[in-house]
Amino acid sequence: MKVGILGSGPGGYVCAIRLAQLGADVTVIEDRHIGGVCLNKGCIPTKVMLHSTELYDLLKRDSEALGIKHDGLKFDLGLLNTRKTLVISQLVEGIRSLFKSYNIELINGRGKFLNEYEIEITSPEGIKILKFDKIVVATGSKPMKVQIEGINLENVLTSDDILKLNYVPDKMVIVGGGVIGVEFANIFANLGTEVTIIEMLPNLVSNMDIEIVSYLEEKLSEKNVKVYKNAKVLEISKYGNELQTEIELRNEKIFINSNIVLIATGRSPNIDDLGLENIGINFTKRGIETDEVFKTNIEHIFAIGDCINGIQLAHQASSAGIEVANYIFGNKSHIDFKTVPFCVYTKPELASVGITEEEALKRKINYGVGKFNLYGNSKAVITGETSGLVKIIIDENTKEVLGMHIAGPNATELIEIGGLALKLEATANELLSMIFAHPTISESIREASMDAIGKAIHNIY
Amino acid sequence: MKVGILGSGPGGYVCAIRLAQLGADVTVIEDRHIGGVCLNKGCIPTKVMLHSTELYDLLKRDSEALGIKHDGLKFDLGLLNTRKTLVISQLVEGIRSLFKSYNIELINGRGKFLNEYEIEITSPEGIKILKFDKIVVATGSKPMKVQIEGINLENVLTSDDILKLNYVPDKMVIVGGGVIGVEFANIFANLGTEVTIIEMLPNLVSNMDIEIVSYLEEKLSEKNVKVYKNAKVLEISKYGNELQTEIELRNEKIFINSNIVLIATGRSPNIDDLGLENIGINFTKRGIETDEVFKTNIEHIFAIGDCINGIQLAHQASSAGIEVANYIFGNKSHIDFKTVPFCVYTKPELASVGITEEEALKRKINYGVGKFNLYGNSKAVITGETSGLVKIIIDENTKEVLGMHIAGPNATELIEIGGLALKLEATANELLSMIFAHPTISESIREASMDAIGKAIHNIY
Repeated sequence: MKVGILGSGPGGYVCAIRLAQLGADVTVIEDRHIGGVCLNKGCIPTKVMLHSTELYDLLKRDSEALGIKHDGLKFDLGLLNTRKTLVISQLVEGIRSLFKSYNIELINGRGKFLNEYEIEITSPEGIKILKFDKIVVATGSKPMKVQIEGINLENVLTSDDILKLNYVPDKMVIVGGGVIGVEFANIFANLGTEVTIIEMLPNLVSNMDIEIVSYLEEKLSEKNVKVYKNAKVLEISKYGNELQTEIELRNEKIFINSNIVLIATGRSPNIDDLGLENIGINFTKRGIETDEVFKTNIEHIFAIGDCINGIQLAHQASSAGIEVANYIFGNKSHIDFKTVPFCVYTKPELASVGITEEEALKRKINYGVGKFNLYGNSKAVITGETSGLVKIIIDENTKEVLGMHIAGPNATELIEIGGLALKLEATANELLSMIFAHPTISESIREASMDAIGKAIHNIY
Repeated sequence: MKVGILGSGPGGYVCAIRLAQLGADVTVIEDRHIGGVCLNKGCIPTKVMLHSTELYDLLKRDSEALGIKHDGLKFDLGLLNTRKTLVISQLVEGIRSLFKSYNIELINGRGKFLNEYEIEITSPEGIKILKFDKIVVATGSKPMKVQIEGINLENVLTSDDILKLNYVPDKMVIVGGGVIGVEFANIFANLGTEVTIIEMLPNLVSNMDIEIVSYLEEKLSEKNVKVYKNAKVLEISKYGNELQTEIELRNEKIFINSNIVLIATGRSPNIDDLGLENIGINFTKRGIETDEVFKTNIEHIFAIGDCINGIQLAHQASSAGIEVANYIFGNKSHIDFKTVPFCVYTKPELASVGITEEEALKRKINYGVGKFNLYGNSKAVITGETSGLVKIIIDENTKEVLGMHIAGPNATELIEIGGLALKLEATANELLSMIFAHPTISESIREASMDAIGKAIHNIY
């Protein structure tokens, strides 16, 4: 079976590998970077930056308390950018090797549907047409540019542009307090930039549990990040050598000066010029429409990742890629999409899986809540990172875990305990009957489970 | 119901809190430190030291690659010791507050059985006798001193003594390569001490998966720690201002000079002078004998933690404390002791739950293995900590997870995913059908599960 995949991001390349493992003859068509946005302009470079700048921030603040003395602490963004490039190229090389070992053909060019089975590929070498039995669209997304006066001014940057910055600006305005906005706020605040976040909605990272997000807000405030919520950006204009952002907040107008304005208002699907119209694939401006196995309205054409009308997360895309490969080969193993975690790699890290308390209320579920504050956790005291919370939402009747929400060190790793609990329909009783290692942050999950159905050990009631 | 508890370590204090929550009138008798060995001389202070010294080691080696420049890096053991004391007192105060809020009486004194129901307590204020309905023995353990010539020389230290050290020795010999030995080797090697470990058995941390431990050995070797395995210590003697340790290795004698010799050959139960003989409680030199609910041969007397013939781990002790409280109150919620994790907080961290491959072989189980090397994990590449492995042992017929073994960053947190898998009898298929967040180390657990029953995505076969 010949399968063509448009795009080599975390959706496309993982789908390609699994298809090849199952015996398909796979061709991947990529017109830009192997590894897509995640690897080149998203998850990976931002995590490299967060990793280094958090360490720098720690050294500025707390290292003497830890017994570590130093002079002349300096951050060299050039060195970090070099490392970022090295990490990316190591991971890109990894994908290349995997493609080679599975005989996956990689074509550098831009693909477009000629008809339901044929893709026209335009590359520097010319145009060629390939025919496939199945086609997977995994073209990803690009930064969304909102309609604001001044959006095209110099130093008004997207998340793509800001990765190329080779100096630390004194002042930065970030438009949008979602995951991209708060991660960059963290990075630049760590480096000493005076950061202001403008968020239209009443909360930062508004899809996450409000209480969990409040721990991030507290830390951002310690790092002198100013946050305007319920605020609307009216205009960006030049102001001498700087930019001036005009916002509206409770009917008042506020003007904020900065060197850089980062637009982090979300991402739009890459669905233009793919010839989707030619063959009648259903899509809206929110992306391609797919069913539960990521099939489009055309039987043998699938779509996965940021280009569909769905969740824009690298791990969602990869899992969708595996699901599509399984489906094509009639494999029974199915991905359980209710276990998809949502993660923010700030300090503290935030992570969620399953439903939030707000959703439980909205859906009128008879729910219970268990909480444990990291202030009572030994490992958090040891590392000095006591600002955090584990919050578990259970069904009050069955005690089944419906959601887990964590703010704290390694929340993005710990959340998988919640994912497994959801997958296996674990109850709070089952979680608390496990022995968690001491001292670990994860012990707090047990405590929160105890709290959900009775009393935790290290909570004072 | 009146319950007396001998000892306020992680077994005793947790048992006390749960008993009080269930309605018991609880008295805890402690003759030394509240929080026991774990909090005062074990888990907690060593993790404070590991946390700081690992950071110091990172700054010495890799910080410039991360973009961080500094001069005059120095480690101040005095500052670290101050922090150690602060962390301990914060945690001790936590236990005091919990005791107060639950009206748990804490008596500073040494308890001894007068008879099956009465404890004689000797304290600076004099002697008093208290009568209880149920008694829990949770007296912990002390460093074991092996019979070696020279064991009582100055600078031959136990793990208790070495925590008081206020300078960084040039050279240290560590007798015993179990968890205590390798953790201290890590701490002092990070600080620049030339460390030599002498281990009698063929492997370090011999209860863990050999392959997992090899990642630690590799890192120890990078830190210039010398390891002699299958080696026997014959004698320690004075040699000028230093100590000389004579060992036998493959019929050869080797002499190793050092400033300090740390004896880390295990821990003996505190069972002397408790009057156990008076009332006929069964015990051996390995500890008090108990059944599956930690009951001794006397119906209303229980024993938990390091003082019993069992696993010496703080979290095992705490869980046993909860189990005893549950049992006393006829509570149906039971701790699942097969989920007990075993953890080493070195770099890389090591963690295990369930059976090892060696055990599967010994028990003639038809098993399968899944592995994923962290070299292929994005988060490990981002943080530069690619030295590690996730290894999963499954039942080859049912695909049920029987054991999980991890070497790598936060292994001690990630292992709880394995614990939950064991608890809920998850299969490798169930683990791989979950969506793990990207980029995280925990994704490697999914990859190892895929490898166990087929092919991982990021492994080259």
